[in-house]
Amino acid sequence: MSNKPKIAVVLSGCGVQDGAEIHEAVMTLLALDRLGAEAVCFAPDVPQRDVINHLTGESMAESRNVLVEAARIARGAITSLADFKAAAVDAMIFPGGFGAAKNLCAFAVEGPGCAVEPTVEAAIRSMHAAGKPIGALCIAPALLARVLGRGSVTIGQDAETARAVEAMGARHCPTHHGEVVVDHELRIATAPCYMLESTLSEIAADAEAVVRALLSLRA
Amino acid sequence: MSNKPKIAVVLSGCGVQDGAEIHEAVMTLLALDRLGAEAVCFAPDVPQRDVINHLTGESMAESRNVLVEAARIARGAITSLADFKAAAVDAMIFPGGFGAAKNLCAFAVEGPGCAVEPTVEAAIRSMHAAGKPIGALCIAPALLARVLGRGSVTIGQDAETARAVEAMGARHCPTHHGEVVVDHELRIATAPCYMLESTLSEIAADAEAVVRALLSLRA
Repeated sequence: MSNKPKIAVVLSGCGVQDGAEIHEAVMTLLALDRLGAEAVCFAPDVPQRDVINHLTGESMAESRNVLVEAARIARGAITSLADFKAAAVDAMIFPGGFGAAKNLCAFAVEGPGCAVEPTVEAAIRSMHAAGKPIGALCIAPALLARVLGRGSVTIGQDAETARAVEAMGARHCPTHHGEVVVDHELRIATAPCYMLESTLSEIAADAEAVVRALLSLRA
Repeated sequence: MSNKPKIAVVLSGCGVQDGAEIHEAVMTLLALDRLGAEAVCFAPDVPQRDVINHLTGESMAESRNVLVEAARIARGAITSLADFKAAAVDAMIFPGGFGAAKNLCAFAVEGPGCAVEPTVEAAIRSMHAAGKPIGALCIAPALLARVLGRGSVTIGQDAETARAVEAMGARHCPTHHGEVVVDHELRIATAPCYMLESTLSEIAADAEAVVRALLSLRA
């Protein structure tokens, strides 16, 4: 039995265009390992909204499952989000990628009134009800804005996305790399990552900053 | 124009069971960025040998392309290995994963007498002929042993794999994390990564150690 804090990492597939952004996901796992926490990976067991050819950017005529593809990033050590229990973890974090806005919720296609995947919504609500911190990178803060309907978050500098986040009831704080927005009341921490032009070292720093914030937000 | 050293990163898909090991690939990209080098990603434009469900470990009845899937790790910034020119880069590195032993060569299924994908063999031979350093992580050193037929490499501690590497003409040096085997004559550097039980921090350290060796092996 480990006494390390356990942090749920919620993945949304495997690849920036139709799933979890791989660099953000792996940098999150690295930050957790380096800061002495244990990553516990989850993903919803649902079909991806689409499959994008990452070489050409074009849609592919095939179907993939979010949990099965996310298992590539987690090396098989991943559980359906339907089995998530807030009592079993100390915090939760959502890496970005279009999967966060196409598979976890429909923000990328439906905008501020978007549907949220039911196991994702239940997981966020149960963490919030338990007073446990939640982090989100890149576009994933839009998902928190949609479910919680308030709080301060960042998606970097993009004005149109920032307006959509505010239309969902949150307050948007513009940020550059190295800046984390922490809402102490809601216990949420967000950072821009690939919503800005980024080197991989900057992604590593942003992910580590959010993980550090989550660990310090624990009750 | 950048004066940074350019390092070719040769990917073999996206996922440990049928492609490039994602953590090793991303840690290689992170090490290159941190050490001031520019990553230039390549993959062979060929079908994967198989597609494995990373949740269950079972084979899936579908076909995927190595270059198209590797583009997920590279965020689209990747080129067919058929277009590789040794003159355009300063060094080359192969992350591991079963893709290195199933897509880049057939070592995982055919053993020491395995076939090597032609653009992979040409890339290694052209780098070697130019006296430029080549690195390999995890199981990928077996590929170097197969193509070069000599030199000192490591695949960690696995006795059966070590014997197969020696059957291809190389000398195997057992290693633990943090140890890199450098063959100064052949200019190759190898480290065990996920051929050993590993934390992600250990993968990061091994990848960085090999990248550091490659940069110092440059003529």
